[in-house]
Amino acid sequence: MLAVDAINKSNSGHPGLPMGCAPMGFTLWDKFLNHNPKNPEWFNRDRFVLSAGHGCMLLYALLHLSGYDSVTIDDIKQFRQWGSRAPGHPETFETPGIEVTTGPLGAGISNAVGLAIAEAHLSAKFNKSDACIVDHYTYVVMGDGCNQEGISSEACSLAGHLKLGKLIALYDDNRITIDGRTDVSFTEDVLKRYEAYGWHVQHVADGDTDIKSIETAIAAAKAVKDKPSIIKISTTIGYGSPNKSDTAGVHGAPLGEEETNLTKQQLNWDYAPFEVPQEAYEQYRKAIERGAKLEADWNQTLSNYSTKYPIEAAEFQRMLRGELPKDWDKDLPSYSADDKGQATRKHSQICLGALGPNLPELIGGSADLTHSNYTDIKGETGSFQSDSPEKRYLHFGVREHAMAAILNGIAYHKSGLIPYGGTFLVFADYMRGSMRLSALSEIGVIYVLTHDSIGVGEDGPTHQPIETIPSLRAIPNMLVFRPGDGNETSGAYKLAIQNRKRPSALCLSRQGMANQPNSSIEKVALGGYILEDCEGDPDLILIGTGSELDLCVQASKHLTKSGHKIRVVSMPCIELFEEQSDSYKEKVFPSSIRKRLVVEAAESFGWHKYIGLDGNSISMNRFGASAPGGTCMEKFGFTVANVIDKAKLLLN
Amino acid sequence: MLAVDAINKSNSGHPGLPMGCAPMGFTLWDKFLNHNPKNPEWFNRDRFVLSAGHGCMLLYALLHLSGYDSVTIDDIKQFRQWGSRAPGHPETFETPGIEVTTGPLGAGISNAVGLAIAEAHLSAKFNKSDACIVDHYTYVVMGDGCNQEGISSEACSLAGHLKLGKLIALYDDNRITIDGRTDVSFTEDVLKRYEAYGWHVQHVADGDTDIKSIETAIAAAKAVKDKPSIIKISTTIGYGSPNKSDTAGVHGAPLGEEETNLTKQQLNWDYAPFEVPQEAYEQYRKAIERGAKLEADWNQTLSNYSTKYPIEAAEFQRMLRGELPKDWDKDLPSYSADDKGQATRKHSQICLGALGPNLPELIGGSADLTHSNYTDIKGETGSFQSDSPEKRYLHFGVREHAMAAILNGIAYHKSGLIPYGGTFLVFADYMRGSMRLSALSEIGVIYVLTHDSIGVGEDGPTHQPIETIPSLRAIPNMLVFRPGDGNETSGAYKLAIQNRKRPSALCLSRQGMANQPNSSIEKVALGGYILEDCEGDPDLILIGTGSELDLCVQASKHLTKSGHKIRVVSMPCIELFEEQSDSYKEKVFPSSIRKRLVVEAAESFGWHKYIGLDGNSISMNRFGASAPGGTCMEKFGFTVANVIDKAKLLLN
Repeated sequence: MLAVDAINKSNSGHPGLPMGCAPMGFTLWDKFLNHNPKNPEWFNRDRFVLSAGHGCMLLYALLHLSGYDSVTIDDIKQFRQWGSRAPGHPETFETPGIEVTTGPLGAGISNAVGLAIAEAHLSAKFNKSDACIVDHYTYVVMGDGCNQEGISSEACSLAGHLKLGKLIALYDDNRITIDGRTDVSFTEDVLKRYEAYGWHVQHVADGDTDIKSIETAIAAAKAVKDKPSIIKISTTIGYGSPNKSDTAGVHGAPLGEEETNLTKQQLNWDYAPFEVPQEAYEQYRKAIERGAKLEADWNQTLSNYSTKYPIEAAEFQRMLRGELPKDWDKDLPSYSADDKGQATRKHSQICLGALGPNLPELIGGSADLTHSNYTDIKGETGSFQSDSPEKRYLHFGVREHAMAAILNGIAYHKSGLIPYGGTFLVFADYMRGSMRLSALSEIGVIYVLTHDSIGVGEDGPTHQPIETIPSLRAIPNMLVFRPGDGNETSGAYKLAIQNRKRPSALCLSRQGMANQPNSSIEKVALGGYILEDCEGDPDLILIGTGSELDLCVQASKHLTKSGHKIRVVSMPCIELFEEQSDSYKEKVFPSSIRKRLVVEAAESFGWHKYIGLDGNSISMNRFGASAPGGTCMEKFGFTVANVIDKAKLLLN
Repeated sequence: MLAVDAINKSNSGHPGLPMGCAPMGFTLWDKFLNHNPKNPEWFNRDRFVLSAGHGCMLLYALLHLSGYDSVTIDDIKQFRQWGSRAPGHPETFETPGIEVTTGPLGAGISNAVGLAIAEAHLSAKFNKSDACIVDHYTYVVMGDGCNQEGISSEACSLAGHLKLGKLIALYDDNRITIDGRTDVSFTEDVLKRYEAYGWHVQHVADGDTDIKSIETAIAAAKAVKDKPSIIKISTTIGYGSPNKSDTAGVHGAPLGEEETNLTKQQLNWDYAPFEVPQEAYEQYRKAIERGAKLEADWNQTLSNYSTKYPIEAAEFQRMLRGELPKDWDKDLPSYSADDKGQATRKHSQICLGALGPNLPELIGGSADLTHSNYTDIKGETGSFQSDSPEKRYLHFGVREHAMAAILNGIAYHKSGLIPYGGTFLVFADYMRGSMRLSALSEIGVIYVLTHDSIGVGEDGPTHQPIETIPSLRAIPNMLVFRPGDGNETSGAYKLAIQNRKRPSALCLSRQGMANQPNSSIEKVALGGYILEDCEGDPDLILIGTGSELDLCVQASKHLTKSGHKIRVVSMPCIELFEEQSDSYKEKVFPSSIRKRLVVEAAESFGWHKYIGLDGNSISMNRFGASAPGGTCMEKFGFTVANVIDKAKLLLN
């Protein structure tokens, strides 16, 4: 009823799910969920994910009733209002106690797979036969929408493969979607599908009133250790509403006063709006005492562990503090111009190899492109599997969207793990929904995106990114790096690792490029910097990134010989450049110097911020073509000669 | 062996699949596929989709062997070279006979669902009990990768629901992916999953040599009319290669000379590179005669049909010619400034209602947001279901990515159908992979994307697009419309319908906005135009789109009163503006007038092409927030007062 009242007051929201899922929510939180309302950050809590995020009032109500300080009754009264801690979907960055930002359907259950992977990995890594410091379940409430989305299919197939026994999903089977009854589009046998994935499946036929069966089913799911569990709980959407229950009308619109009164009558609910019966508080808030004891017991366990295993305990606690190990970056390589040029994907592999031994929290893999993305960590063997969860390499399969969501889930676990994942840059499109959530939720996932331009070559336009880099740059809070040599790749990794509140997208080449004499790891932090310069004010500024940086450098040499004063600016990360001081930006790009030419084998979209109305670009304003990479580069104008020509057009 | 030779010669490509799938390819094309090699466009052909597009040499070999003029032996020798008709993945726009552009995994099988929907719809619409002019199968070869991708899960769940009996997928079960054996990440029971979707499933245990069983299985699949079929065919990747078969090494790298020789020995293949045994040509090219007869018979059927049903026949043939009906746009509404302002999503619904009766080829729906996107066609009842395939409304379920791929599939059917589909703009991210393919493959899918800014309001930042519009604008060949009132919405629809070689993304508001006195349907074709102007040269140009256009108009009135000369430019479609003449563009944005202010409730990314280094923007450079839409607009600076303030900063 709190949900009904809040949604009526805000005149906006989704009452159907909270009304239908109250029984399963109550059962789970009252009987099973290990958490400490007075410390939402307590490490060993069970994670609860409301994958059907539109039903957030269920979650706010559970948090409030259970005694979380983060959601007061006043917050609930401010549901969906400016500045409220009860926003329209659950958001980790607004409300302590929210584990995962949800709303985009299918993402939450997929994040939960990541949470369960993190738990399994840390359990295997830290637990001892006589001291178990990592031991919790991940619970999910998901709806029909979550089960229709492909991302959940990908993630749940992988969860079954990995036998994530501590992942338990409660599937709110209410047979209603926005378009009406699910039978207009969704008549598959969901449980059979999950069985095919290797999950343990159960069905509770009456989720509206049969709390005992829900309890029994959750207990049974917990007992199955070698399979994730799904419990299909058949409910009535908007349960209790005499005229709107079991209709799409109650999914996403307020009940309204009249129907609310009828609902209260039907449910024998004799309380004013926002009035919570004392007995409800009393029952729910037993969680406070239980939680305090759970945390105290765990603290004792950790204390014993620390005595017996001081090195492991120190490491565990360092990770929980989110503190990087001393000298974690000491092996990141630097290069001189004499070092042989390599592809930045190769430099990336070297970085991962250099970081791996010094940064045990680094965990990741590839969406089935390990030997193309070079995402392996040198010297490590084996991968995270059901019988080797201590390993940190993840084979995601050909499942980009789930990969991104799982990486988010690992980050959401807040245990210091630093997740990374690789695919071809062009397939960032497949996982963009979850990349956006990394940025929105302020979590430092690292995306290793190789084959970053038409330099991909023969695979052709389906595999050649054109618009992908600009479209990633458009995402707020996403750091997009396109390093131009070995030093810049090391610098990009250093910054990606350090930025634990911002995701990073590393755009890396398939093909080799020269190392620059004046690049450095440190300069990457400036986002853009003067790589080569002339004496006095330049006549023209060349701007380059990635594999096109060296074209600018070579062209500048020719142009300098012809008597022109040329500056070359390397721009490995536009976002970081934008955060520099105005005076620094003015130093790099003096307002008075308007002859500017950017060279990047991608759409020019976005670059006019630097070249303005008077500059020019050598860029890709069409899709690519299938041919050897060098041929593509040449045919599309990415040659030193063309840079010189276009520069001269500006200079003359 | 053609695949082996071509890949060796180009030193790039994927021999594993063609070698493993040659038996199923031969069986299907020799025994079942109805097509006419001498007329790849013959309407009633079976559609063949190679969903595992990297195996394209299989398809080029089949086309060449069967006698298609589009793939000669010289084309095959130019595999993956600049200008070749045998590019690195199958591309419809390069090679006649290719039905679908594939490569991004999972997309092809999902397109095939669209092809099968198109066939079922047209069958129901045109066929008569005594004259069947639409009657073909859609065949797919898909791999493990396709089955791991979530998009295929979405599409195949829907295909099962819709009982698309003429869709038959051959699943190349070779148990190898790039990362090694599939058992590192993919151990689900695929056939059981498809059974759960409602598909007919079969297994051929030996796909390497047991051609008879493949034939029997395809025949059985054809006989099942009320379910789509999947036949799991267990094969050996790189079959015949003694050292590389059954390894990831043969997936995506040439066999090389030595291993090729060993393979030829093992397969008793005594021919030179690119040499095709005469008996192979003879067997395959029986397809030419068969095809000619099939088409002749069909022409006769059509001729009989035309006699008996002249009106339907004329309509059918008009559609096949891709010709729009006379006066199709006659009911598209125009508005005056006196007409009550409405949300552009509402205008969109009115447009669909106005087009529906006059444009019977319009077919589409929504990813379970019909009553939010307003994608229904007024006056029409019912939807495309297994028992009502003549209906043209599609309930896609909560499956955005499959929706986009299915829309592509309907367009790929090339029968004049004009597909559209709706979801929230922010969830364009979920379907971006397939939106990109609409643009690349030059097909006129219409994306109806509502809730286009922070104006969404209470649903909050997970549902408020910020970077989505810019990121769509970055896609080559995509028309992105953001209409600013009723006239511009009608204009956007008119252009979207007319552009059959370019997809359109219509970005539409949740909230209302005023109708402008000087907008018109026709002006939208200019992409950007002067909506309000001053006498003589303006001091400042305000640029607006969508719901922010009226802010510019209102601000210009105030500023004009204060004695400033203001121009307001409406920019409903940047891409079309870019295609205007230089003189027109100069007229709208004179180079000398540098004081320019753009107002758009989205990332400013991309707008500097018009505002340059000297202009400014009122835009969103962070994620939004959960609050009523009007509050969000105000808090983030989208007010007339702020436009005036920012304009004055530029003017002073």
